[in-house]
Amino acid sequence: MKIGILMGSDSDFEVVKGAVDIIKKFGVTVDVRVISAHRTPELAADYAINAKERGIEVIIAAAGKAAHLGGVIASFTTLPVIGLPIKSSTMDGLDSLLSIVQMPSGVPVASVAINGAKNAGLLALQILGLKYKDIEEKLVEYKENMKEEVAKKDKLIQEKLK
Amino acid sequence: MKIGILMGSDSDFEVVKGAVDIIKKFGVTVDVRVISAHRTPELAADYAINAKERGIEVIIAAAGKAAHLGGVIASFTTLPVIGLPIKSSTMDGLDSLLSIVQMPSGVPVASVAINGAKNAGLLALQILGLKYKDIEEKLVEYKENMKEEVAKKDKLIQEKLK
Amino acid sequence: MKIGILMGSDSDFEVVKGAVDIIKKFGVTVDVRVISAHRTPELAADYAINAKERGIEVIIAAAGKAAHLGGVIASFTTLPVIGLPIKSSTMDGLDSLLSIVQMPSGVPVASVAINGAKNAGLLALQILGLKYKDIEEKLVEYKENMKEEVAKKDKLIQEKLK
Amino acid sequence: MKIGILMGSDSDFEVVKGAVDIIKKFGVTVDVRVISAHRTPELAADYAINAKERGIEVIIAAAGKAAHLGGVIASFTTLPVIGLPIKSSTMDGLDSLLSIVQMPSGVPVASVAINGAKNAGLLALQILGLKYKDIEEKLVEYKENMKEEVAKKDKLIQEKLK
Amino acid sequence: MKIGILMGSDSDFEVVKGAVDIIKKFGVTVDVRVISAHRTPELAADYAINAKERGIEVIIAAAGKAAHLGGVIASFTTLPVIGLPIKSSTMDGLDSLLSIVQMPSGVPVASVAINGAKNAGLLALQILGLKYKDIEEKLVEYKENMKEEVAKKDKLIQEKLK
Amino acid sequence: MKIGILMGSDSDFEVVKGAVDIIKKFGVTVDVRVISAHRTPELAADYAINAKERGIEVIIAAAGKAAHLGGVIASFTTLPVIGLPIKSSTMDGLDSLLSIVQMPSGVPVASVAINGAKNAGLLALQILGLKYKDIEEKLVEYKENMKEEVAKKDKLIQEKLK
Amino acid sequence: MKIGILMGSDSDFEVVKGAVDIIKKFGVTVDVRVISAHRTPELAADYAINAKERGIEVIIAAAGKAAHLGGVIASFTTLPVIGLPIKSSTMDGLDSLLSIVQMPSGVPVASVAINGAKNAGLLALQILGLKYKDIEEKLVEYKENMKEEVAKKDKLIQEKLK
Amino acid sequence: MKIGILMGSDSDFEVVKGAVDIIKKFGVTVDVRVISAHRTPELAADYAINAKERGIEVIIAAAGKAAHLGGVIASFTTLPVIGLPIKSSTMDGLDSLLSIVQMPSGVPVASVAINGAKNAGLLALQILGLKYKDIEEKLVEYKENMKEEVAKKDKLIQEKLK
Repeated sequence: MKIGILMGSDSDFEVVKGAVDIIKKFGVTVDVRVISAHRTPELAADYAINAKERGIEVIIAAAGKAAHLGGVIASFTTLPVIGLPIKSSTMDGLDSLLSIVQMPSGVPVASVAINGAKNAGLLALQILGLKYKDIEEKLVEYKENMKEEVAKKDKLIQEKLK
Repeated sequence: MKIGILMGSDSDFEVVKGAVDIIKKFGVTVDVRVISAHRTPELAADYAINAKERGIEVIIAAAGKAAHLGGVIASFTTLPVIGLPIKSSTMDGLDSLLSIVQMPSGVPVASVAINGAKNAGLLALQILGLKYKDIEEKLVEYKENMKEEVAKKDKLIQEKLK
Repeated sequence: MKIGILMGSDSDFEVVKGAVDIIKKFGVTVDVRVISAHRTPELAADYAINAKERGIEVIIAAAGKAAHLGGVIASFTTLPVIGLPIKSSTMDGLDSLLSIVQMPSGVPVASVAINGAKNAGLLALQILGLKYKDIEEKLVEYKENMKEEVAKKDKLIQEKLK
Repeated sequence: MKIGILMGSDSDFEVVKGAVDIIKKFGVTVDVRVISAHRTPELAADYAINAKERGIEVIIAAAGKAAHLGGVIASFTTLPVIGLPIKSSTMDGLDSLLSIVQMPSGVPVASVAINGAKNAGLLALQILGLKYKDIEEKLVEYKENMKEEVAKKDKLIQEKLK
Repeated sequence: MKIGILMGSDSDFEVVKGAVDIIKKFGVTVDVRVISAHRTPELAADYAINAKERGIEVIIAAAGKAAHLGGVIASFTTLPVIGLPIKSSTMDGLDSLLSIVQMPSGVPVASVAINGAKNAGLLALQILGLKYKDIEEKLVEYKENMKEEVAKKDKLIQEKLK
Repeated sequence: MKIGILMGSDSDFEVVKGAVDIIKKFGVTVDVRVISAHRTPELAADYAINAKERGIEVIIAAAGKAAHLGGVIASFTTLPVIGLPIKSSTMDGLDSLLSIVQMPSGVPVASVAINGAKNAGLLALQILGLKYKDIEEKLVEYKENMKEEVAKKDKLIQEKLK
Repeated sequence: MKIGILMGSDSDFEVVKGAVDIIKKFGVTVDVRVISAHRTPELAADYAINAKERGIEVIIAAAGKAAHLGGVIASFTTLPVIGLPIKSSTMDGLDSLLSIVQMPSGVPVASVAINGAKNAGLLALQILGLKYKDIEEKLVEYKENMKEEVAKKDKLIQEKLK
Repeated sequence: MKIGILMGSDSDFEVVKGAVDIIKKFGVTVDVRVISAHRTPELAADYAINAKERGIEVIIAAAGKAAHLGGVIASFTTLPVIGLPIKSSTMDGLDSLLSIVQMPSGVPVASVAINGAKNAGLLALQILGLKYKDIEEKLVEYKENMKEEVAKKDKLIQEKLK
């Protein structure tokens, strides 16, 4: 039970960390790598081709600007690939989002929100949850906890405004 | 082995058909429904709450404009939810895309391209492929076929230009 | 005479406060709650379903990113729902705005400007003003005061530039 | 019980008709006018100033491009003003939407979707519904009917796919 | 020889100052006012109606968000109106720009760049230059000076890089 | 009394005609030319440099896509230059608009709406109106006629809906 | 002297033809191929790796939507790569443009306009022109011809308006 | 062997430096100039017309907002022109990008990413590489070094996460 997390640049790690953290919290192994679709294309291809054999079941690919990493990975594997658009210094992440989500017919990449690292992690876990009962149970529990957290904040606001 | 496909309006079916077709081609059962997040919110909630028990393993939610269907479904289940943004008559689908992909932390929806119905279907199949070996094998075969199709078109263009 | 104000996350309160303040200034009771369309969908449904009986006459729903809160509330009630798009960390609030304003036919949400909390409050008061004469009178007075404030600023600028 | 419907140009009528029809269906009188904020500014001011006395309780202002009509009307009255952005021949209605929804603090205009005429009408009715019980009852009924319509379409799709 | 400069809010003055300064530098009188299209509509109408008689020959109207000021002024006068879009806190000034530049047929507003106050001033001066020879001469001189300033900066860069 | 009208491509004429027609209607001479900033840069420079001597008082420059014509003309003359953004086959005219309106400090171009040819003509006439009384009088009359036209359409709609 | 022209899908050929035609007109050999970055990634890599040896000196890569082809090619070669964004059925080509032009540091792709096939061809020829005198001479001649063509159209318009 | 680098304003130098540095690193002479398309149009024309004779083989033109510099230069020369869009204070560089990339048919400008100065330099070097073997060899080496740098960062991240 292993999730691959790739980022196009080590500067993306600050955002990507959100995915690493939530996956580790669920007790799932992560394989975190800095692999660039454009600077290390052979590595990207190798990673994608060998992922299945290495026991990886879902791949998260984080990239900014002309964010091709997810698409490049998806072109070499039938594993589900989740694209995490990183907000770049210009265009507010719209370039990253469109480069990831607008994949042509035949090779899907599952896009989450711009900088939505935690959701990329949770989506990977939901996918594993289909196969692994314990992950699914933890997801149900996680969902319940979220409700309680919102309820707490709701109470705080109500008390504050009394 | 069943995939749920919801659409917010029956007018979305022309696009959604692309997902239905590819999934059926892989021999997987589809459960296709017209359920609106805004016009039939109770139905949407019921569908999401009962999906797991009914044997549904992935849900595709197609919607346009302020496309909340995917988010509403995802709020009630831990199954993976794929959002399919439908191009609306104004804003060229950007409204649908952002309404689907920009989900807040904690409740992911996996977005594919605007009107990218076939990819929504393939992504659902890739997710099932983790668990079901035969689906995975068919996906590998499908990927090979795509290569051959491109190669054929490549030859045609080259002959045409001789 | 009560206005409900919901926000998807307590971090929205800094903006939402603008609505709370103007409504309180008009002497109308506010019912402020942190309720998330995605993390606490049952609560959102319950709130909307029971609002009328609890004496709430207008509901303001503030949310960011894929801002579904207004739409979810509107799907369960015929009370007027005002959507307040919160500027998110990416996309400059365009995602929130489109998710709120582009509601499909049959279930309207009245959108105000991105982060336009004071206007959300004033719009709610204008709606109440139709039914409650004292609110209407206060609105007329408020409008007059605005004119005087602009006139004061106009004088200041003119003196400054002499 | 009267709703004012203004449009900046008679060419907007094709869209605006959606609002007229739904309001008439609810048995409410409409006062439909072609008044341009830019070509007939005095008329626009007069209309807004006298609306209350003439028994108008909500005003819908439809306009395209630099769509100032809603804002101009709202500047002269404390009645709730609903802005209906008309899709223009360029910019896909984004210009109309932003010109309407981004109103500065103090003078709200309630925006609905681009070309969302039916929702503009329904929103006006919901506002009246606070004051007039029969309108509210019809709205509840209308909401129920929508559910049934969706249910019918749902059945049709299911039968079609058997 | 007088140019009117209006701004929708005194907070716009920081930007508008660029127009005031360049016009004063050319020795032309400015009539600077804080007048809001939405908060003081009567004042805006009065200003526009009386401008010609008061000797004003061009009007610059600065406003942000749903920036209607230029359009409202232009609706009441045949004097040339220059719209200066102010960058707002959301939407990066695109809302202001579109609200100003996309004026419907019959009532033009001349838009300059977002926050382009100096150019608004220069455009007003160019318009006056048609009628007043001394202004035209100063504009020619100004243009020459710009060239020299660029030439100086060019030299500095070249020396820096030696 | 002459207005220069340049277009970057003869295919722009269909739109530009709107400016030609309104100016001719006012009895002002137009000097219409196809001059491309990029394909005939020397011609563009010559035109701008000699315009004043040839009696031209305002220049309208129509162009699409990376619409540099207005800026190029304005770089060589102190005459007021009006930029008319032509809607191109992609980007819906946003490229043309931004290329024209976002001029850097020192060299203004007055932008009108995308495809807003009539307004480009009217703006040129308003500028001439400062100097030529008869033009101003015709503009006042034109404004009155517009009101009557709107009033007629208003009546037609009201009759239609009786 | 050979230019490679790749397209992601044979449906792009209608646009790409513009590049093929202009290059052939200059007497330069074209190597036209249908190669998809996502459906035939190995082919794309092979093509890029072997291009230099096969005598190709510039590569034009045309693609739409999440247009990764140019970037993928550029990742495997130091030859200049020109990206030609194809207008897709949604997003008006903005997705294609941003996916091509926003390449990360280290691996440039030279973008031309959306659907700007002729310019892609001309740019490739200009690059060859540095090395091959005859191409350069033809480009100078081509530039002159363009001027004459514009001059002809200029005359036609002037005669038409007499 | 010389590359011309022009910038519209000396304030662009902070970004442009990235191009200067990489080109110098490759041992190629740069000719860096501040030349404005709008403030010094004659200089821009002269520079472009004389570039070839002065031994310049590629020209990089950096500009922001309505970024015409690249187009103006390209209109006067058949040398390859690379446009470098500078992020402006409003519109996040989209205005600069569209003004550069959307060049009309016949006069291409090769656009790189917004603020993508290093890539502008590398693209210029790749173009020279066609003609000069030593540049090409250095580019191949540079590409290899990039891979090693990514590999180092990859290791660092993996160690950090152990």
